[in-house]
Amino acid sequence: MGQRVLIVGGVAGGASCAARARRISEDAEIVVFERGPYASFANCGLPYHVGGVIAERRRLLVTKPELLRDRFRIDLRTRHEVTRINRAERTVEVRDLESGSVITERYDALVLSPGAAPLRPPLPGIDSEGIFSVRNIPDVDAINGWIETRTAKSAVVVGGGFIGLEMAENLVHRGLSVTLVEMLDQVMPPLDPEMVSEVHTHLRERGVNLCLRDGVARFEPSGGAAPTVVTQSGVRHESDLVILAIGVKPEIGLAREAGLEIGDLGGIRIDEQMRTSDPSIFAVGDAVEVRDVVTGDWTLLPLAGPANRQGRIAADVIFGREARFRGVQGTAVVGVFDLTIASTGASEKRLRRAGIPHEKVYLFPPDHVGYYPGRHLMHLKVLFDPGSGRVLGAQCVGRAGVDKRIDVIAMAIQMGATVFDLEEAELCYAPQFGAAKDGVNMAGFIAANHIRGDSPLMHWGDVDNGSFLLDVRSEREVKRSPVPNAVNIPIDDLRERIGEMPRDREIQALCDTGFRSYLAVRILKQAGFRARNVSGGIQSKERLPVG
Amino acid sequence: MGQRVLIVGGVAGGASCAARARRISEDAEIVVFERGPYASFANCGLPYHVGGVIAERRRLLVTKPELLRDRFRIDLRTRHEVTRINRAERTVEVRDLESGSVITERYDALVLSPGAAPLRPPLPGIDSEGIFSVRNIPDVDAINGWIETRTAKSAVVVGGGFIGLEMAENLVHRGLSVTLVEMLDQVMPPLDPEMVSEVHTHLRERGVNLCLRDGVARFEPSGGAAPTVVTQSGVRHESDLVILAIGVKPEIGLAREAGLEIGDLGGIRIDEQMRTSDPSIFAVGDAVEVRDVVTGDWTLLPLAGPANRQGRIAADVIFGREARFRGVQGTAVVGVFDLTIASTGASEKRLRRAGIPHEKVYLFPPDHVGYYPGRHLMHLKVLFDPGSGRVLGAQCVGRAGVDKRIDVIAMAIQMGATVFDLEEAELCYAPQFGAAKDGVNMAGFIAANHIRGDSPLMHWGDVDNGSFLLDVRSEREVKRSPVPNAVNIPIDDLRERIGEMPRDREIQALCDTGFRSYLAVRILKQAGFRARNVSGGIQSKERLPVG
Repeated sequence: MGQRVLIVGGVAGGASCAARARRISEDAEIVVFERGPYASFANCGLPYHVGGVIAERRRLLVTKPELLRDRFRIDLRTRHEVTRINRAERTVEVRDLESGSVITERYDALVLSPGAAPLRPPLPGIDSEGIFSVRNIPDVDAINGWIETRTAKSAVVVGGGFIGLEMAENLVHRGLSVTLVEMLDQVMPPLDPEMVSEVHTHLRERGVNLCLRDGVARFEPSGGAAPTVVTQSGVRHESDLVILAIGVKPEIGLAREAGLEIGDLGGIRIDEQMRTSDPSIFAVGDAVEVRDVVTGDWTLLPLAGPANRQGRIAADVIFGREARFRGVQGTAVVGVFDLTIASTGASEKRLRRAGIPHEKVYLFPPDHVGYYPGRHLMHLKVLFDPGSGRVLGAQCVGRAGVDKRIDVIAMAIQMGATVFDLEEAELCYAPQFGAAKDGVNMAGFIAANHIRGDSPLMHWGDVDNGSFLLDVRSEREVKRSPVPNAVNIPIDDLRERIGEMPRDREIQALCDTGFRSYLAVRILKQAGFRARNVSGGIQSKERLPVG
Repeated sequence: MGQRVLIVGGVAGGASCAARARRISEDAEIVVFERGPYASFANCGLPYHVGGVIAERRRLLVTKPELLRDRFRIDLRTRHEVTRINRAERTVEVRDLESGSVITERYDALVLSPGAAPLRPPLPGIDSEGIFSVRNIPDVDAINGWIETRTAKSAVVVGGGFIGLEMAENLVHRGLSVTLVEMLDQVMPPLDPEMVSEVHTHLRERGVNLCLRDGVARFEPSGGAAPTVVTQSGVRHESDLVILAIGVKPEIGLAREAGLEIGDLGGIRIDEQMRTSDPSIFAVGDAVEVRDVVTGDWTLLPLAGPANRQGRIAADVIFGREARFRGVQGTAVVGVFDLTIASTGASEKRLRRAGIPHEKVYLFPPDHVGYYPGRHLMHLKVLFDPGSGRVLGAQCVGRAGVDKRIDVIAMAIQMGATVFDLEEAELCYAPQFGAAKDGVNMAGFIAANHIRGDSPLMHWGDVDNGSFLLDVRSEREVKRSPVPNAVNIPIDDLRERIGEMPRDREIQALCDTGFRSYLAVRILKQAGFRARNVSGGIQSKERLPVG
């Protein structure tokens, strides 16, 4: 008989671990305890079932229990909760949630994949009827039931992260009027604020009542179907349905009670082999802290891709293989109505917190060339080490081609690429798919021009009254959106009027997106002036966070 | 006064070189001689203007002459042909095609960007009216004029490469009935034949009369608007319009006459700095031979992206910078009706020719998860070094997500990634954008499973009668598409029926796409049998080239 592997939790990481374990070992005994009623389900699809985009509920049940049993010989026990780990004995106590009976099960290796639970702060009224989380199929069943029986017409979504945004979109799609309440001054906190201001505009254009910088104070009984959401500023949002999506926290009760090491961020501490502080116990998925490959810090990243990889690695290690988890870079994507928002690597705020030197470029490349119909511009930010040029992170927002650029840069970061490598990237080009100089190349050009000193970059936050602010847009553009204190000399006139430039001050050049001002900087520097380019130009200015 | 840089050819490479030269040197004198009537135009868009997708002709004129003059101070002279290089004097002779006058111009550096000319083999009748190439705007003007004045209803396209396929699609889009004649047994010769059989089917489904393995013998006068295309097999194709798109050859007349070194493939020979055998003369774009970074061989790659990069590098080098061209990996994409076809790195046939050891995986991953609507499967092939696992090439065909996967793998190849890196890639995942295990990861898993010996791969060409062919599909699937000589044991029954497996022979396992047969191989190998997995299963078999 082979090893006895017990797995706590049958979604993503747990299911991957179980299947991988069987592929490695035919004689292992593999038991999965899942508290909920289903094996691995499509939890990333839950909001889309509420919205009716995924119309059939059965579509969410991606892994059939029979499949696990017949194909993988996995003993899946749903509605079974592991309540206690006895490390000395290498046993767990398991409660059958149907019968209430408790049994003890022996393990050679134990894998914890309990996931993360929605945050539910102890606010007054939080346990009222009509407030829902979105974690599993029973949750969306309850939401759908509530909407139908109450013929709900409005909803308040609390929280502007992935789930909050997806729920807002899907509830609008279902015909509800939606208010989105977010405590921070931005949605999508993994991104830097200037990258999501376009998302704020888009949400409002699509009818979402977006309320930023205002956390929830309490939930009060109301005449409507759901409690009134009262914010810290005193605003009262009435609705028929409240969705609570303010984040998740690792489920560590079992691990903590067993005395396993917990990290500073509240996740289970593991090594590169997914081993906890007890060498017979492994942990994977949303409940663990993982290493951020860019900053080297511990982080929490509750996403399905890393969970799956971790599950595989835990199984490999249990059966004596040399697998190691390389850490995470935080690649993520979310669709919000017509926009795609994606990022990989570290954000600027994260780099600043970690004290890592960084520089950034902003650009607005097309998803494909402008002469082919249907072109959309995206907003791309790339962070890099100003010394070596190593790519540290990227964020992108737009209507098309966003996930492609972030995936390419994700691979670049994984392989330790520099901005000089991005310059040289050879990517697909035909008129409907890209450009001969893709946005990824352009980001490399701009960053490399900075590092080589050809066109040093600066940013709106550094625009200085002591400098000479030069606006090289056309007169018509300047009239439409003037920049205070800037002197306008259209780029094509700059050579003739170069005598107007000051020798005693730095010249800060700007245009609409940063390309013409780059040309201006080249002209000026060759004529012996000190000059820098305002990255992303007016387009970046318009996206600066307000206030 | 700065250097005097003369550039022959104002499209792609030449235009990039000129603009880059100005950005580096304000005092250089930069003159571009362009034989045609326009500066840089959208030559990748030409077929789409014929199809009406790019409705306005002016859209093709992407670079205005005034822009080059006023913004870059480039002296662009259209309708000027450089007819001779005098290397000893460092001069060129230039003919003004309007006036016929010839002048001599001095250079410090000369950049040749003459492009490549459509192949026109000396077939009888090839100079007849009604036969067109697709190289520049006058060509498409002529095609459009011909279609209109003759109210053309049918066309024969000769050649199934990029231009031939795009022209076929666009002529169908314009309402013509189209015959595509190709001498080889496949369209898109850069790809391996099994990767384009789906394209053949798709072309026929969309009404194209596709005639493979039949070259043109001659063009004969006919009663119709265009000559009759008579093939080597004797078939006669009548039509109102003939498009000749059988490839291009570098324009090297000027270079050869000047005694510059020409490579074995007929392109101008250059070094890593884009320098020809004369250190004052550079060459870029479709006319030069470049190094293939995967095979190390010289190659011709007439594409816009590399041409642009080469133009930049030539300018850098002229002005004393340390730039080097890293070579090409051949990333390319083409749209054919609803299909996208893309590739990067070396094809199998190229690796075989170069004598480079390689192994391959076939898989059929979804563009996004199946539980979200609108999912399409693509056909992905990844080539890798069977020892180190280094990724050597990839090809992909499908309706969605194709260019993204190839771009990610292009970046992986550029950075020297292995299939183990593909396993660990952290890519965007949300239901509408991908999968927690993306196709790129899956390709890595399958290849790594092969290298590690967990599930050795084999291919249909190696299926051997002396082996035991095991089909683990369901009985229903087998009934629909039986495999001769295969024994059917559905995967879920394999453990019970493992006694039926032979100990004296290798077992070759297959299923629909290769996943269940992978599981079968794992079960068999752990039970001590010799077993291999038929990569891509029935789906690969159905795509094998016929005959």
